[in-house]
Amino acid sequence: MKIELNRDFIDQLKELIEQKADQDIIQIISELHAADIAEIMEELDSDEAQYLFLLLDGELASDVLLEIPEADQRRFLRGLPPDVIAHRFIEFMESDDAADVMADLDEDVQDEVLQHIDDKEQAGDIADLLEYDEDTAGGIMAKELVAVNENWTVQTCLKEISIQAEDIDEIYYVYVVDDNFFLKGVLSLKMLIMKPTHTVIKSMVTEDAHFVRTDASQEEVAQVMEKYDLVALPVVDQIGRLKGRITIDDVLDIIREEADKDYQMASGISGDVEAGDNVFQRAWTRIPWLFIGMIGGIIGAGVLGSHSSQLQQIPAMAFFIPLIAAMAGNVGVQSSSIIVQSIASGTRSFDSVGRKLVKELSVAFSTALLFSVLIFMYNFFFTGNMRLTYSVSITLFIVMVFASLFGTLIPLVLNKLKIDPAVATGPFITTTNDILGLLIYMTVAQMFFKIL
Amino acid sequence: MKIELNRDFIDQLKELIEQKADQDIIQIISELHAADIAEIMEELDSDEAQYLFLLLDGELASDVLLEIPEADQRRFLRGLPPDVIAHRFIEFMESDDAADVMADLDEDVQDEVLQHIDDKEQAGDIADLLEYDEDTAGGIMAKELVAVNENWTVQTCLKEISIQAEDIDEIYYVYVVDDNFFLKGVLSLKMLIMKPTHTVIKSMVTEDAHFVRTDASQEEVAQVMEKYDLVALPVVDQIGRLKGRITIDDVLDIIREEADKDYQMASGISGDVEAGDNVFQRAWTRIPWLFIGMIGGIIGAGVLGSHSSQLQQIPAMAFFIPLIAAMAGNVGVQSSSIIVQSIASGTRSFDSVGRKLVKELSVAFSTALLFSVLIFMYNFFFTGNMRLTYSVSITLFIVMVFASLFGTLIPLVLNKLKIDPAVATGPFITTTNDILGLLIYMTVAQMFFKIL
Repeated sequence: MKIELNRDFIDQLKELIEQKADQDIIQIISELHAADIAEIMEELDSDEAQYLFLLLDGELASDVLLEIPEADQRRFLRGLPPDVIAHRFIEFMESDDAADVMADLDEDVQDEVLQHIDDKEQAGDIADLLEYDEDTAGGIMAKELVAVNENWTVQTCLKEISIQAEDIDEIYYVYVVDDNFFLKGVLSLKMLIMKPTHTVIKSMVTEDAHFVRTDASQEEVAQVMEKYDLVALPVVDQIGRLKGRITIDDVLDIIREEADKDYQMASGISGDVEAGDNVFQRAWTRIPWLFIGMIGGIIGAGVLGSHSSQLQQIPAMAFFIPLIAAMAGNVGVQSSSIIVQSIASGTRSFDSVGRKLVKELSVAFSTALLFSVLIFMYNFFFTGNMRLTYSVSITLFIVMVFASLFGTLIPLVLNKLKIDPAVATGPFITTTNDILGLLIYMTVAQMFFKIL
Repeated sequence: MKIELNRDFIDQLKELIEQKADQDIIQIISELHAADIAEIMEELDSDEAQYLFLLLDGELASDVLLEIPEADQRRFLRGLPPDVIAHRFIEFMESDDAADVMADLDEDVQDEVLQHIDDKEQAGDIADLLEYDEDTAGGIMAKELVAVNENWTVQTCLKEISIQAEDIDEIYYVYVVDDNFFLKGVLSLKMLIMKPTHTVIKSMVTEDAHFVRTDASQEEVAQVMEKYDLVALPVVDQIGRLKGRITIDDVLDIIREEADKDYQMASGISGDVEAGDNVFQRAWTRIPWLFIGMIGGIIGAGVLGSHSSQLQQIPAMAFFIPLIAAMAGNVGVQSSSIIVQSIASGTRSFDSVGRKLVKELSVAFSTALLFSVLIFMYNFFFTGNMRLTYSVSITLFIVMVFASLFGTLIPLVLNKLKIDPAVATGPFITTTNDILGLLIYMTVAQMFFKIL
């Protein structure tokens, strides 16, 4: 029954596209879910993908458009006239998806597309949504929702729902409003089905419905929905009037996106890496951190250069440079990522910075002690040079404690300054700690050269 | 109306707990959502938290128990007799949550708790769920669901739903089964409300409902629900009989957990880091990677030691060791994280390993060329030593290409071997690339010392 999506299928499809066997292609493709078609398109080269895409009709075409990477969306739409964009794609979409797609178009194209939308209510909804900042609740929400008046009965409600729900893919909750559209509460469809039909809505509503304001950040939206296990969340304006609703699938995308961003930041990659990006764009996302790493390396060379007398006296000191640098980097990354994660997942900011530091430092002290004893024993038994043995193990202890301290403090400080603390993970911490480690190493060595 | 959850509130609560002002505490706390109470408990010390927890009654107590970290769950439950666990907590929970909590208890305690559950159907459901592996669809699913027979009419359905739905928090979909409970399709409540009441269910069901088998991995479950934007997913057994359903909130937890795990792995932290963990446990999660880093550092020292003649001839060579090591590490981390992410997010494995490699290598070549030219110019103008200048920049080029190659290949190979590719990120890549970088540096230098 279901088509197996594998290499053979892709090859067969490529052949059909080359033969321009449109009917066969349509027959195969139309059985698939939009998300599957989007996945297939990523395996085709861009001309094949475009050819396939233009064979799709109405609803399916617009569904597929929403599933492909944004870079491809832009490329496909760029060549199309505004009326085609309106009639073939936008008119089939819910308002939030339509606004997302439109937001990527030039402003004059946006205006023309809006004028070509036949349903003026839909055009108005999209225009409203385009006003909001993309990263806020207003920018994520859809205007399509089922709202019922608090004075209605269950029976009136159910009738009204079946009218309003025509345009909506899925209803999870029904929003209860007063005559001025102020949000009064939330009802699940289940509650409506289970109550006697003459019950007045007002009597069923509980007061503690969760909602966000249109200007709430997308992180806040995600945190509220995740914390309270909601599948949809109403959005209200400054004075509490119902403006839209956000569904869990959009929030899932945000959570995935944030996690990916933090992960990439920790790996020294800036900006989006989309499947369609070319070599130059891919390289570009990596160059900034590599450049910082190189500058760090050059500074490190400077530090070593200005302490070259120690290195000349005991050449074996140079052998342990990679060890000191690596341990500093690893400890720093560990500490910073713990803090960044706790900042990212924490909804509220209780002032426990002090406690966090104390916890981190006690971990740092114990691990630093362990590893400096280990390296002391190694050098004592295998190298036999006491100056080197002392220098390396004392350096390692100091470096590990400092690396941990910096790894903890920098994200906390950045967060206080309203800068995304995730920038202080990965290569940034590694680089600063490398330099720090070398400085400490050379300073400690200098001291021991004077004493011993 | 809503209580502001801030430091002052916590301090006030701590004081009330100290005074044992139970009534006041209950009054304040009972207005809050379980997730908020759990958050507050994390800010209290463990005795205060336990005191607060034991003041909560029935439903709320069990809701809070589900929101607190697993380590705390275990600690709270450890001291309680099986009948209390059954009557005060388990009996209020849906089967999936109950099974999750029970899974952490010792097996003999599990048996006793099951015997104390008065509702034998619930006990049976929990016992069934405990049979499944925790990381599979069977281990995540709940048994509570609304199932309707395909031969019923909409009217019969709605009546049946209002009976079955009593025990269920939220219904999103209704599952259609035949007489033998084989899954035949999925209906949304919306569809039921909108059809005439005499419609036979069979005629409304579409054939392409998404489902998973009980033995599907939790990653697969998350991928299916995320890809097709589902809020609930039915789970069937080997022959297709409906066994349970998974809701989006559980999947959200899984996605968050997986993202956290990958992030921690990339940061060199193994195992869970929960807020309640003590210093020893926290240190323990970091020691493995630090140990690997130290071994790497010692091997690096060995590599340098066996090439000490080059270092003695041009001591300035040592200055660039941190730069080579850092660039190798950074490039390796970038490449591996890109691959790990694409493996983690990809549903299907089209055999495009070759293409991935080609893409990565072209990025590697261009960035390697850029940075080796930059470092060539730096050394040419500022150090003036041609042997050093050539050695460093040629080394950098080779190292960056190799680091990228390894960063790409190792996760791909691990994935083929069914090992989580995420282990090959962070410190692991950094450490291997450090050693590799040093080896190449010394080898290239040796060559140039012979030629120039």
